[in-house]
Amino acid sequence: METFNSNIFPKGEKASSDYFSGGIAWVQIVKPNDSELNCQIGNVTFEPGCRNNWHSHSGGQILIVTSGTGFYQEKGKPAQVLHSGDVVNILPHVIHWHGAAPDSEFTHLAINTNTQNGIVEWLEPVTDEEYKNL
Amino acid sequence: METFNSNIFPKGEKASSDYFSGGIAWVQIVKPNDSELNCQIGNVTFEPGCRNNWHSHSGGQILIVTSGTGFYQEKGKPAQVLHSGDVVNILPHVIHWHGAAPDSEFTHLAINTNTQNGIVEWLEPVTDEEYKNL
Repeated sequence: METFNSNIFPKGEKASSDYFSGGIAWVQIVKPNDSELNCQIGNVTFEPGCRNNWHSHSGGQILIVTSGTGFYQEKGKPAQVLHSGDVVNILPHVIHWHGAAPDSEFTHLAINTNTQNGIVEWLEPVTDEEYKNL
Repeated sequence: METFNSNIFPKGEKASSDYFSGGIAWVQIVKPNDSELNCQIGNVTFEPGCRNNWHSHSGGQILIVTSGTGFYQEKGKPAQVLHSGDVVNILPHVIHWHGAAPDSEFTHLAINTNTQNGIVEWLEPVTDEEYKNL
């Protein structure tokens, strides 16, 4: 069985604590936005316990989980547990968050689609109470 | 260093010999097309020597190389060598092909963007002469 370093991308820059809490996240932009493909792709690595704020995407987003265990939750719905190989379709304007499990680093590609409509609209942090009561 | 099976997706179905030559390719659709995200994603695995036909995408495509060594060539330009972590932006209507090196399996994600404009338009095979003269 072929194995390789799961980090095929550099870890990138520390993400802003304005939009992430519970630990540190790193973001490597692997495909900058442009006006012909209308797509921006980032590789995001979350420390255990780290998650992003509630947010939405006017053009939608697709997550491809590449390592670790994490969560995805849409407002008003139960959280889903995510593992390597899982794909999440986030439709435009759906309020949600994603991040690592308390005991696992978590990495995913974040593919922003239809970026002519906007990329991300940030909302409030996911509180410790929300995160602990998953 | 964390390592994991590079095949985070199943290998999928054998691709049609109408559109691939020089060996076998497998395609696993990891995100079916839809009319809200306007995006379809496949994971493509090429045997050594295997490449797809010349083709273009009306909505564009992004390749993310996940393992092995391969090539990408646009019509009238030199071929580029691709390795794990490389990202290729294929603008709408650009005629091109991609595939494995003669001595390496090659795997990439193929992210079809703006699929409201179409996904793929197939052309003629890449001949052995074209492939051997890279």
